[in-house]
Amino acid sequence: MSDHVRKTVEGGVMTLTLSRPEKKNALTDAMYGALADAMIQAETDDAVRVILFAADGDAFTAGNDINDFMQIATSPTPVTDRNVFRFLHALAAADKPLVAAVTGLAVGVGLTMLLHCDLVYVAEDAKLSAPFVNLGLSPEAASSLLLPQIIGHRRAFAMFALGEPVTGTQAAALGIANAALPKDEVLAKAQAAAALLASRAPGSLKVTKRLMRNAETLSAQIVTEGAVFADRLNSAEAKEAFSAFLERRPAVF
Amino acid sequence: MSDHVRKTVEGGVMTLTLSRPEKKNALTDAMYGALADAMIQAETDDAVRVILFAADGDAFTAGNDINDFMQIATSPTPVTDRNVFRFLHALAAADKPLVAAVTGLAVGVGLTMLLHCDLVYVAEDAKLSAPFVNLGLSPEAASSLLLPQIIGHRRAFAMFALGEPVTGTQAAALGIANAALPKDEVLAKAQAAAALLASRAPGSLKVTKRLMRNAETLSAQIVTEGAVFADRLNSAEAKEAFSAFLERRPAVF
Amino acid sequence: MSDHVRKTVEGGVMTLTLSRPEKKNALTDAMYGALADAMIQAETDDAVRVILFAADGDAFTAGNDINDFMQIATSPTPVTDRNVFRFLHALAAADKPLVAAVTGLAVGVGLTMLLHCDLVYVAEDAKLSAPFVNLGLSPEAASSLLLPQIIGHRRAFAMFALGEPVTGTQAAALGIANAALPKDEVLAKAQAAAALLASRAPGSLKVTKRLMRNAETLSAQIVTEGAVFADRLNSAEAKEAFSAFLERRPAVF
Repeated sequence: MSDHVRKTVEGGVMTLTLSRPEKKNALTDAMYGALADAMIQAETDDAVRVILFAADGDAFTAGNDINDFMQIATSPTPVTDRNVFRFLHALAAADKPLVAAVTGLAVGVGLTMLLHCDLVYVAEDAKLSAPFVNLGLSPEAASSLLLPQIIGHRRAFAMFALGEPVTGTQAAALGIANAALPKDEVLAKAQAAAALLASRAPGSLKVTKRLMRNAETLSAQIVTEGAVFADRLNSAEAKEAFSAFLERRPAVF
Repeated sequence: MSDHVRKTVEGGVMTLTLSRPEKKNALTDAMYGALADAMIQAETDDAVRVILFAADGDAFTAGNDINDFMQIATSPTPVTDRNVFRFLHALAAADKPLVAAVTGLAVGVGLTMLLHCDLVYVAEDAKLSAPFVNLGLSPEAASSLLLPQIIGHRRAFAMFALGEPVTGTQAAALGIANAALPKDEVLAKAQAAAALLASRAPGSLKVTKRLMRNAETLSAQIVTEGAVFADRLNSAEAKEAFSAFLERRPAVF
Repeated sequence: MSDHVRKTVEGGVMTLTLSRPEKKNALTDAMYGALADAMIQAETDDAVRVILFAADGDAFTAGNDINDFMQIATSPTPVTDRNVFRFLHALAAADKPLVAAVTGLAVGVGLTMLLHCDLVYVAEDAKLSAPFVNLGLSPEAASSLLLPQIIGHRRAFAMFALGEPVTGTQAAALGIANAALPKDEVLAKAQAAAALLASRAPGSLKVTKRLMRNAETLSAQIVTEGAVFADRLNSAEAKEAFSAFLERRPAVF
């Protein structure tokens, strides 16, 4: 495992905790690799009935580490061969139910991964955003399909293109999350829901989840988006956006 | 007709009333047969412009009769050849507008049939639920497609997998129903809406409904779900769930 | 340009203003032609980054001009060859972001065109409706697909079949619009959002919008609906509905 992802298994629940709080749990290649490895292993482990995503510190995750993004852009390894894509495909392919406990910031993939979760509990004052266009990038994790489905094209466009955030309370009203709670109650609620799922008939859960979502369609969308995203990372627009971000000035396109 | 389904036709509206109140209108094979026969006949009867589903007593329906479920599991007749599937396909194929008046409990198919209705009016304190996984079963009536579409994947998963109910007021807010009303006003409202539909241009209604929904996709999903459901009914998980239900003890999986 | 559509380009934003307030901006063939021409030109004009739809007077638009409808019904030119269809296909095919500012009435195409817009701002007391069945007609502009997707089948059916309107406040709650504002603030808000979009990375906006919507599916639905609509325009039901409308009496079907 990465030092920045903690894994425990107890009572049928595998908990994967993002643990890089000094960087607001910004996700690195190593962290994606640890998440993907754990999820793939869980699929064939009868001792794991449910996977729970949690986080240390004040933020769920600030999203992809920005230095990691800039390194990817100049790396000879195609972005679609990297651990982040193994993680995204593991999300789409998961048969085991996925539960998430979200407090604080959930940016970029921190929001889009929730669209693959089966139960999501958020803090009322959580702040979810997916400002891909602000950075000259484009949606990933099949969010170009899943976010409009759940909140409608116009709200999704405002999130992607204008970078408009939603609070946890709004996320619950919109169906991104099952419920919004006081910050201190989120993890316990998610753990209780995960434990309840772990007590349910596993065969029944598996076929129900399979009937409800088309993993092939989601994986295909991840591939389509991945090609666009790779192109974006190498674009002059993204270079300008990243430079502006680091220099704390407005980007000019 | 079954003794437990009452049919009347008046002013272009065929009303099908579930009438087994002593069993909370739990649906039997004979009742499904009566509903399917009436719906199929209505499709070619110019005197019927609209079909209205209603119920006697305090509950809309407690869902499929549990003894009937257990008998199906041991019957040589495949579940997909039974009247319940004739009814589900009649819902998916209906060209005539379907209206429903729902008070009290709407469990299982009592909820999922509403997803095929064109106008639904519910009591504010109605209680809708689809606890398929609780019984070791899986979603039917194309609800694995339609419920996530209308309320989102996470809320639908909570209903199917955790058995979480929604009130009538919530159902209206979520778009499962058109409006939630005081219990005593539901039937009159649904009858007024049905009468209004019966006064509208029938050719226009027919093509509008056809454009709005893909009957082939819905029927295909009913077939896919049916194969899974038949498998589930014969599973060890379902046997344990039904035994536990009848013995009023927690099921252990 | 038509005298009834005003076009300006400033700061990357092309504003197309419906300007036939004496007829509540009812849309004529010439107006559709002007809108389609401007949108098609904008797609290849780097000076245009965003298109903003606005309107003079109290109404956004009362929809298709009713006399125009009656003329189309008796014209040898198929409805699907007319400017209205060029406009609908331009909406579906648009790569440039579309923003709308809506106050007052938005009837028929006045509502359905909003389903193709990326950001929509409405007056709290705006009144949006799509009473196609009232006129013996059927949904257009891919609204038979898009309206159920955004508000659910039952609410969409109530709008199409019963002619039920929604207020601007409701439209925002349902996701048809991004926000509902006091009437006097709508245009300024839409202009600010359009200006913000015009400052964003244009390549990123383009691929994001493309990933979010399937233009081919939308165009195909417009074609399917168009054949049905042409048939409807020539139907006895539509003739009766239009006569009743002009004679201010209830239609009898």
